[in-house]
Amino acid sequence: MSKKLTKRSEDYSKWYNEIILKADLAENSAVRGCMVIKPYGFAIWEKMQAELDRMFKETGHQNAYFPLFVPKSLFEAEEKNAEGFAKECAVVTHYRLQNDPTNEGKLRVDPEAKLEEELIVRPTSEAIIWNTYKGWIQSYRDLPLLINQWANVVRWEMRTRLFLRTSEFLWQEGHTAHTTKNEALLEAKQMQDIYAEFAEKFMAMPVVKGFKSESERFAGAEETYTIEALMQDGKALQAGTSHFLGQNFAKAFDVKYTSKEGSQEFVWATSWGVSTRLIGGLIMTHSDDFGLVLPPKLAPIQVVIVPIYKGEEQLAVISNKVSGILKSLRSKGISVKFDDRDTFRPGAKFAEYELKGVPIRIAIGSRDIENNTLEIARRDTLEKQTVSQDDVIDCIENLLEEIQDNLFNKAISFRNNHITEVNSFEEFKEVIDHKGGFASAHWDGTIETENKIKELTKATIRCIPGNANEKPGFCVLTGKESDRRVLFAKAY
Amino acid sequence: MSKKLTKRSEDYSKWYNEIILKADLAENSAVRGCMVIKPYGFAIWEKMQAELDRMFKETGHQNAYFPLFVPKSLFEAEEKNAEGFAKECAVVTHYRLQNDPTNEGKLRVDPEAKLEEELIVRPTSEAIIWNTYKGWIQSYRDLPLLINQWANVVRWEMRTRLFLRTSEFLWQEGHTAHTTKNEALLEAKQMQDIYAEFAEKFMAMPVVKGFKSESERFAGAEETYTIEALMQDGKALQAGTSHFLGQNFAKAFDVKYTSKEGSQEFVWATSWGVSTRLIGGLIMTHSDDFGLVLPPKLAPIQVVIVPIYKGEEQLAVISNKVSGILKSLRSKGISVKFDDRDTFRPGAKFAEYELKGVPIRIAIGSRDIENNTLEIARRDTLEKQTVSQDDVIDCIENLLEEIQDNLFNKAISFRNNHITEVNSFEEFKEVIDHKGGFASAHWDGTIETENKIKELTKATIRCIPGNANEKPGFCVLTGKESDRRVLFAKAY
Repeated sequence: MSKKLTKRSEDYSKWYNEIILKADLAENSAVRGCMVIKPYGFAIWEKMQAELDRMFKETGHQNAYFPLFVPKSLFEAEEKNAEGFAKECAVVTHYRLQNDPTNEGKLRVDPEAKLEEELIVRPTSEAIIWNTYKGWIQSYRDLPLLINQWANVVRWEMRTRLFLRTSEFLWQEGHTAHTTKNEALLEAKQMQDIYAEFAEKFMAMPVVKGFKSESERFAGAEETYTIEALMQDGKALQAGTSHFLGQNFAKAFDVKYTSKEGSQEFVWATSWGVSTRLIGGLIMTHSDDFGLVLPPKLAPIQVVIVPIYKGEEQLAVISNKVSGILKSLRSKGISVKFDDRDTFRPGAKFAEYELKGVPIRIAIGSRDIENNTLEIARRDTLEKQTVSQDDVIDCIENLLEEIQDNLFNKAISFRNNHITEVNSFEEFKEVIDHKGGFASAHWDGTIETENKIKELTKATIRCIPGNANEKPGFCVLTGKESDRRVLFAKAY
Repeated sequence: MSKKLTKRSEDYSKWYNEIILKADLAENSAVRGCMVIKPYGFAIWEKMQAELDRMFKETGHQNAYFPLFVPKSLFEAEEKNAEGFAKECAVVTHYRLQNDPTNEGKLRVDPEAKLEEELIVRPTSEAIIWNTYKGWIQSYRDLPLLINQWANVVRWEMRTRLFLRTSEFLWQEGHTAHTTKNEALLEAKQMQDIYAEFAEKFMAMPVVKGFKSESERFAGAEETYTIEALMQDGKALQAGTSHFLGQNFAKAFDVKYTSKEGSQEFVWATSWGVSTRLIGGLIMTHSDDFGLVLPPKLAPIQVVIVPIYKGEEQLAVISNKVSGILKSLRSKGISVKFDDRDTFRPGAKFAEYELKGVPIRIAIGSRDIENNTLEIARRDTLEKQTVSQDDVIDCIENLLEEIQDNLFNKAISFRNNHITEVNSFEEFKEVIDHKGGFASAHWDGTIETENKIKELTKATIRCIPGNANEKPGFCVLTGKESDRRVLFAKAY
């Protein structure tokens, strides 16, 4: 593998794949469409999990764990949901292997060990969870039920891309039950807000909040709230969704509660999830032609210190000086690595941490020891400065915040420049085909028009913004009346 | 479900199941042999995970994630491992469902969507991981490779019990690669030590460290190190295992490295794991006829405060007083819950927290407000004391430590009283059939004798203690010569 990264302007898709491999984030596995998440990539996911898990718990949710498998009869109970996922289900049909009598040393499926009922590997867990909730919910006192699960799910995708679309992926799925429609709606919107806050504060990835058109809704939902991010190549990324499920699953699984007044009522439901896809969004929001760029709040290593030395004696003096800096930074909760490997030269280390997107790199050599200085390089702007060793802790603390802010500001400025109001189909195509980003356009509200536009331009309705400019107008394709503008884009 | 728990002396197995259901830890699911881990049970698992994960990282391990599925051809590559797990493998054969033409509204497996190669749902991940390591390991510089994975695995068990033996379970599996045999052996033993430390310090569950006889070894291992705990009913529980895999997987997957000297060498391997089975061990080590008893270090709620009041005015006064206590306890990192629900009486709350094993319960009523006192009840001894509100924080801190120590001391005293040296097969049977616990006996070292003893008594060799009394003697069954005593017991 060449050390040099393909430039984004040459081939964005190739650049994306290369950055994942070269920064040691993930790789394809021997299983079609399934990835191996390597330690550095997984460390980013762990940081994401920790923040999200905290936010979920602070809003009253508890974690639990439900089975990987869904019996077919449960899977098909909520018909729309089943229909939506049927075409991408991995199915377990047997529970035993045996020696292959025709092929020594090999195994085959034991034909005698066929399951009476096939098991679906969960593509999402509404069915198995709602079947369980039936036993947990009797009275209004049992509600709201606010549960989250961290899990792997499988959707047999035909075209896969690392992090963005893989046959198996890791995610969290929240599943809540409520006494009233309004409470469930508020929950679904609350989780959309939490996702947006996480994306913007931690990932430094600005998002548009809105809801989906009917044809883009989650299978089985009555409303899907989404956060949509914009990647550097002008394509949108659905980064998280939160669904108001109405009483669909309660009815499919007969989940009722006794109200305070003694009547039997179906409960109201939500579900919501984000996945390892977020790592794809993180990469495509900030990274550059030199490699990954990570926001400090999610960087597994926030600061790396590289010694510049000749001989062990110089290294000993530098190491001694560095040990104090390491201690001070760690006491501030800053994750810092001192790379004193003698098997690589400083230049190779610089390139490695640039590729891996470490926010701040410190270099310290013998002349720095004499001068009481060190060199600080920031990954986002690639700027370097020499600072006094006395100021290094304050400087790093400030710089981490500055980098986090700078990444967000850069991304939101790019995003804002790529939401374009269009008033004709010519303008629409110009945005979609050339400028990229979101086209904010009037739409007549019909699935036919939505499909036609998709067919003509590959753009889909990413969302109907929640805070939309609700001024009426005329559909960009049909000229029919429209209530409000919606956001179209090509999407991952 | 009756509120009263079956007594251990009446039916230990029934008591075990009831405690899990009544304390809201887990339940059986609609999928044969798979459990639902409920929020309270999952919170215990999260506490276990946090400590183990910290210990793994402190010893240089990193987390990663590998695919759920193993293609059959990889699965069968290491023959002993494959043979060991073949009979309990869930197998994915198809990747799509379709509408059932003979049964409207129902789905069936699409016969056109048959996989070319079947996928095994991982029962353990050596095969998929070693196939991946082949690409990661080229040089001695890439070693040691110290990776851990938190994941679900599936072993199609015929007889299942909540936590102890379920078709799907959660675990961690470490998989490491080393340049030398000795380094791999040290790693395997280090992880056994970490498991033992975790069991004893956090679970307050004493364990015997040792290694397995050949017939009880992990399929594909050259040595299996184990920690064995003793349950209250005298049966042993294998609580964690760490395997020295020799070069078996390196050879099966052709994983070689270039040594410093330039030669090509196969790497040496270990793997090690603990699972949600630990929760079963935790329950059966400490709990009593009143319900669960949790060691403070793993209790999701360490302290519960129940107000005793009549009317809102009294509650307001108590709540005001309690808020200061809550704040002080939380600032010490103590997890405390104030249960001011008005839908349950104090007596019902007391019973609930007793069942759930909350280590300390505080009751505070109007008279306590007058007297500046409160009542503290500890779950392990069920003792109560009245203390001054001024002393409550110190008192709780000390008591949590005392309870943790007391549980361990009680358990190790029980365990030590149940390791019995036996010198005849009569004595052996007496221990196994009546007294329970471990029989420390001489064994002639043959699989035949091991099998015969199992057939006659249902006892198996739990381990050959690492620090064994290595005095020679004569086999308890055959009278043949023996190097050392080994521990036999009936086991879960």
